[in-house]
Amino acid sequence: MKFAVTGLAAVLAFTVAVPALAKPKPAPVVAAPVPAEVQAAVLRDDALKTNVAYDFLSELTTRFGPRPAGSDSEKRAAEWAAAHLKELGFQNVHIETFPLHVWARRGPETIAITGEFAQPLVGVSLGGTTAGEVEAEAVMFDTWQEFLDSKADVTGKIVVVLQPMAKASNGSGYGRMSGTVRSKGPMEAQKRGAVGFVMRSLSTDGNRFAHAGASAWSDGKGIPAMAISAPDASQLSRIEALQKAGKGGPVSIHMKTTGQFLGLKTSQNVVADLVGSEKPEETIVVGGHLDSWDLGTGAIDDGAGIAITMAAAKVMIDHNLKPKRTIRVVFWGSEEVSQPAGSPTSETGGGAFREAHKAELSNYVAHAESDFGADRINNFALSATDDTGFVTQLGNLLYPLGIYQDTKATPHGGEDSGAMNGFVPAFDLNQDGYRYFDTHHTANDTLDRIDPQQMSQNVAAYTATLWLMANTDVRFKLPPKDEE
Amino acid sequence: MKFAVTGLAAVLAFTVAVPALAKPKPAPVVAAPVPAEVQAAVLRDDALKTNVAYDFLSELTTRFGPRPAGSDSEKRAAEWAAAHLKELGFQNVHIETFPLHVWARRGPETIAITGEFAQPLVGVSLGGTTAGEVEAEAVMFDTWQEFLDSKADVTGKIVVVLQPMAKASNGSGYGRMSGTVRSKGPMEAQKRGAVGFVMRSLSTDGNRFAHAGASAWSDGKGIPAMAISAPDASQLSRIEALQKAGKGGPVSIHMKTTGQFLGLKTSQNVVADLVGSEKPEETIVVGGHLDSWDLGTGAIDDGAGIAITMAAAKVMIDHNLKPKRTIRVVFWGSEEVSQPAGSPTSETGGGAFREAHKAELSNYVAHAESDFGADRINNFALSATDDTGFVTQLGNLLYPLGIYQDTKATPHGGEDSGAMNGFVPAFDLNQDGYRYFDTHHTANDTLDRIDPQQMSQNVAAYTATLWLMANTDVRFKLPPKDEE
Repeated sequence: MKFAVTGLAAVLAFTVAVPALAKPKPAPVVAAPVPAEVQAAVLRDDALKTNVAYDFLSELTTRFGPRPAGSDSEKRAAEWAAAHLKELGFQNVHIETFPLHVWARRGPETIAITGEFAQPLVGVSLGGTTAGEVEAEAVMFDTWQEFLDSKADVTGKIVVVLQPMAKASNGSGYGRMSGTVRSKGPMEAQKRGAVGFVMRSLSTDGNRFAHAGASAWSDGKGIPAMAISAPDASQLSRIEALQKAGKGGPVSIHMKTTGQFLGLKTSQNVVADLVGSEKPEETIVVGGHLDSWDLGTGAIDDGAGIAITMAAAKVMIDHNLKPKRTIRVVFWGSEEVSQPAGSPTSETGGGAFREAHKAELSNYVAHAESDFGADRINNFALSATDDTGFVTQLGNLLYPLGIYQDTKATPHGGEDSGAMNGFVPAFDLNQDGYRYFDTHHTANDTLDRIDPQQMSQNVAAYTATLWLMANTDVRFKLPPKDEE
Repeated sequence: MKFAVTGLAAVLAFTVAVPALAKPKPAPVVAAPVPAEVQAAVLRDDALKTNVAYDFLSELTTRFGPRPAGSDSEKRAAEWAAAHLKELGFQNVHIETFPLHVWARRGPETIAITGEFAQPLVGVSLGGTTAGEVEAEAVMFDTWQEFLDSKADVTGKIVVVLQPMAKASNGSGYGRMSGTVRSKGPMEAQKRGAVGFVMRSLSTDGNRFAHAGASAWSDGKGIPAMAISAPDASQLSRIEALQKAGKGGPVSIHMKTTGQFLGLKTSQNVVADLVGSEKPEETIVVGGHLDSWDLGTGAIDDGAGIAITMAAAKVMIDHNLKPKRTIRVVFWGSEEVSQPAGSPTSETGGGAFREAHKAELSNYVAHAESDFGADRINNFALSATDDTGFVTQLGNLLYPLGIYQDTKATPHGGEDSGAMNGFVPAFDLNQDGYRYFDTHHTANDTLDRIDPQQMSQNVAAYTATLWLMANTDVRFKLPPKDEE
């Protein structure tokens, strides 16, 4: 979709009169500069009318499907994206390559109950785990803590953890389970002699999708480890109840996993700038990650994030506007991975970017990442600055979009941009993530999950925020040390 | 869950006073018979408080998972169900075996786009089609009619039909597509020289599940034929749009299917009676089908149907009530199949039942089948009888459940019970099927899709209807010939 008002006409409007705010009156003879917040409001409202983000996301996900970290698909998508960014008018567009230990599924995986309750289950192996085939008795634990506390002998058995994940708009149920049961579960089960590990997917709904996700690096020496769908976990809970009622014997499970590490390969970040007109070295970094899990087409995670941040800058290009500071859009590679601890690849896309740009970081003004789907942004967080008026101004600008300031939150950016925490201040535009973990890391993460209208609200919020931040002298504060 | 009022106490209540309807007054010295419609109202209201149907469905789907036609799982489920029905107090419980050409998947199936737009798709082969592996260029048609009308040479290619299915409460979008594109598509494509057939699943939502379903008998001599999920069909439509815009070349598809016919085996119907106290030969047949597709656990299709109809009769047993006519509950086997045309197995569970009971059919008073999930019943249809007062009485009884008479519809029973059309009058208790085809024939057809409260409303409607029909002398009419 093209703009109703062309770039040139819009610039004229900016230096003559702002139709949305001013009543009809004769144009002044001498053009007066328009304040940044007024320009930002116009950019914001125009962003709501565009489909740039959705169209980009549609073509990306359609053309390349899944874009697993380090895959040929991720690489081709990066090359296509770079060409696309150049065509859209971005500057300094380039690809930065970095090393990566690549993990991939090599064929169909299966998991099934065998014996008395024989039936197939829906499951996927966890990233970083091992290809293998095993059949053994299942030992079920209702929670991760119950497993940790248990003295049960699981030698030669399959450990099954059935703990469900809490559902919340801010996604707060996820972190404490991805870092424990999913990350540490397979290794902990192996340490206790188990031959397999099964967990309930980190899912917030009841559809029968298994949710992939990274687990701690096992270097191909681990045990088969899978996440089953929430309905399958409920099924195992019901079987456990039948057992306890004396209506069934032990449950055995057969697993066949095909995921494994393929060795040291490469991935890449795509970098594109709107170079600042007055202070080009002062840079605001925004973006998302280009890679995705291999089951879906990575629409909400995280094609949406790169589409939104790219489109926000594109609104400025379409108005022929140059920010005073540089706005740098990064499509990070390989966010969805686990890597060997301590190796040069232990931090991936985001870490590689930080290392490659270490010398510039002191000039980086702020960073943010969109990596939580494309539903409405509900609130924002920005480190308090000496100029508290700036945050008020930003709040006024975002309020018409239904976005308020979360005064209690410390901004931290995303998984990739957050690699710069401690060096570069962060800001957050937080989306409503209530349905995000319904779909996250599943085959169901496709374009169909995107609501174009909510996505445009995201673009509007980013374009307004970026324009204001890129046209001020205000500096933003790093969070206090203990908050990092 | 147990009844708050035990069977004996309830019978006493029936012959003394009906608490829900009568104001407190001295009990009459001589017990007066309670009219059937008053008893039916009490049974109806008690049914709303029970979990019998849900508990039965929970154990059935948990214990046996999928129950494909002619499988060991279907057989074990039938044996378990028969034992369960005996335990619940049903009479004449027995299993009737019949021959069946069994079709089954023999391992994981895959479908993927290869070449320029390479990516995996989510698909399943159609029942009755052939195991095989093929890779060829895809020729896409937006509708079934477009394919039929097309003069395009599809020799050596894969025919893809992308037509979506309409969504409606009465499921009216299904029949005209299951009988055409799904049933005839593979054979028609093969006839024109195609080496594979792909269709958009008969699905009414956008989640990434492929919907299985029977196709016309190909006797293992067909071509690989699959249904892909709705989002995958949308993906192919978008790729087609890119092609038409000059942004992409031809699309090739690789398919590997593993489903095939395994030869002539057996399946079975489970039959259980509440024998009538006055006219036992006059029989009302209700039920559902025990078999399911192999992907889910057959909760909405059709564990729910057998659970609902069984539980409706169980409410009467729990009250120690005997109907005057016999109520026969049948768990039909093998509804989800296609069989050789003209062979003795061309009609399966329902047809086998009709043949086995041919001599009794003239005494059968009516038949109905619950095979449309477990959401609320919205309306009913019953052939007009000479005694129009009966239908009015039934309407009054069902009205408090939110059920009205559909005066325009001709009742036809279900796929199985409908085999008796022409011999036995039908009645319908029609559910709201708005979300039925979201899940129908997918891996997502699990217990999680069932709303226990709506399911109890179904049980209440069946128990009230059956009690009224089993305690009247009214006969019901066969529909006029041209309606059959």
